[in-house]
Amino acid sequence: MGSSALTLVLALALVACVTPAERKCLLSGSWRSDSGCRMVVSVLSKDGSFSGSYLPGPVADNSEILTSPLKGSQQDTGQISQPIFSFTVHWQLQDSDTAQTTVFLGQCYVGTNGEETLHALWLLREAADNPAEDWKATRIGTSVFTRIK
Amino acid sequence: MGSSALTLVLALALVACVTPAERKCLLSGSWRSDSGCRMVVSVLSKDGSFSGSYLPGPVADNSEILTSPLKGSQQDTGQISQPIFSFTVHWQLQDSDTAQTTVFLGQCYVGTNGEETLHALWLLREAADNPAEDWKATRIGTSVFTRIK
Amino acid sequence: MGSSALTLVLALALVACVTPAERKCLLSGSWRSDSGCRMVVSVLSKDGSFSGSYLPGPVADNSEILTSPLKGSQQDTGQISQPIFSFTVHWQLQDSDTAQTTVFLGQCYVGTNGEETLHALWLLREAADNPAEDWKATRIGTSVFTRIK
Amino acid sequence: MGSSALTLVLALALVACVTPAERKCLLSGSWRSDSGCRMVVSVLSKDGSFSGSYLPGPVADNSEILTSPLKGSQQDTGQISQPIFSFTVHWQLQDSDTAQTTVFLGQCYVGTNGEETLHALWLLREAADNPAEDWKATRIGTSVFTRIK
Repeated sequence: MGSSALTLVLALALVACVTPAERKCLLSGSWRSDSGCRMVVSVLSKDGSFSGSYLPGPVADNSEILTSPLKGSQQDTGQISQPIFSFTVHWQLQDSDTAQTTVFLGQCYVGTNGEETLHALWLLREAADNPAEDWKATRIGTSVFTRIK
Repeated sequence: MGSSALTLVLALALVACVTPAERKCLLSGSWRSDSGCRMVVSVLSKDGSFSGSYLPGPVADNSEILTSPLKGSQQDTGQISQPIFSFTVHWQLQDSDTAQTTVFLGQCYVGTNGEETLHALWLLREAADNPAEDWKATRIGTSVFTRIK
Repeated sequence: MGSSALTLVLALALVACVTPAERKCLLSGSWRSDSGCRMVVSVLSKDGSFSGSYLPGPVADNSEILTSPLKGSQQDTGQISQPIFSFTVHWQLQDSDTAQTTVFLGQCYVGTNGEETLHALWLLREAADNPAEDWKATRIGTSVFTRIK
Repeated sequence: MGSSALTLVLALALVACVTPAERKCLLSGSWRSDSGCRMVVSVLSKDGSFSGSYLPGPVADNSEILTSPLKGSQQDTGQISQPIFSFTVHWQLQDSDTAQTTVFLGQCYVGTNGEETLHALWLLREAADNPAEDWKATRIGTSVFTRIK
């Protein structure tokens, strides 16, 4: 094997190794959470903002939850491969007498295999009648999302 | 109609105007948090979205934090007097090597005296290098805001 | 002014300055939270552990909550004036079909005036039927306690 | 006893063994978290309290964390198969100038295959100098533990 061929092989190997680091996470697309929910995120605007929809999964115990709109933003991916993101879901309930909103705050990680995963914490708030009942308004948890191909 | 009857009518009208239940909270304006931070919220769009800026207060131990932009939304106030709201702050740091984002999720309460207070929980995330270090990325706390007159 | 008078003034000034730093917080005693709950904490054991009871306040919307036992510990106060503490409350409910437990994690601060305040975050968990329903089991909030004299 | 009677006895014994509802979770034993940490929990006292130790795993980026003691309790398992539990870890750091404490609050679930998993949220607090710096003292996250056999 000539030296130019060897150089080519080495160059290809190098590309294969460093590609994951070059891969930048973009939230656009379809995702499934570890609890079986799905979400679809639109194309990002230039300023990093996006919209989409959140669909409760088969494990939802509350069949009155409908597909709900989400809005959010992620950091500029021009410089950052694993950006922080946040989005808000205003829940559309069939029985509309209680308002509920969830905010997600997370980071998109790109694995050594190029696979993206979203790790997020969320806060879920139900409307309370007054400040004295505010203490019980907020739930908390985590979600991990993987891309639906 | 005698003057005392007129006075009664005026008094009743006044009561009708100031009745707290009629007062609807709008996030627009200037607010101060219990930890001394200030924020200014723009006029709301028809869809409830708003922008603004967040200014660290005198208690900030980190003088490198600059006034930072915020974006958020609140529920339709056409029907609801004490709406849930959420907003995100992307922190502008002088030393820009670590990205930090905070999401606030809260509710605006209107007191019996008509005074508005915002009760919120927040999550603050710093960028981590990989999922194995994600566990320590997120801080949590509460803030209570009152309107600056 | 004679030298002994000057010494007295200096000594008093010194006492005024250093007293707060010398004051060590001990959780033993009676406390009231910012939401109107009360708690009584026993004398601490040598290892920093304590027991006590938690009493819901007038703002409790749930009259079925009874005075409930608490158990916890604080860091060694031999060296630390403002120790971290934690305690757990197993709620005694009249209607006992749902178990609820709260953990508090906080720090006792001694103000410049010698007044102690406890700043804590808490997690409240209700029993869920299975892991698929675990996501909604936990609420979160903050409490600030001051000593009842 | 005839062979059909023997079969019946065996079948009944089998049912008794595999019925998930009969299996009660006890925290005693060794567990591994989804982030690679391990913990060992002692035999439970009659009142449900336990002690043990927590060992950071290979993913710990902070080699100065040593095996640390834990103390906690779980609900009475006389009546409940999937008890809520809580425990506190006072971190033993080689560089001891910052105190750190974590509280875990979770529930032990018994799967249809009899496997136990612990789902927990935790709060991690670092000592702050004064109440004005308390806002940044607390981190939050989740852990899922499975039994090490």
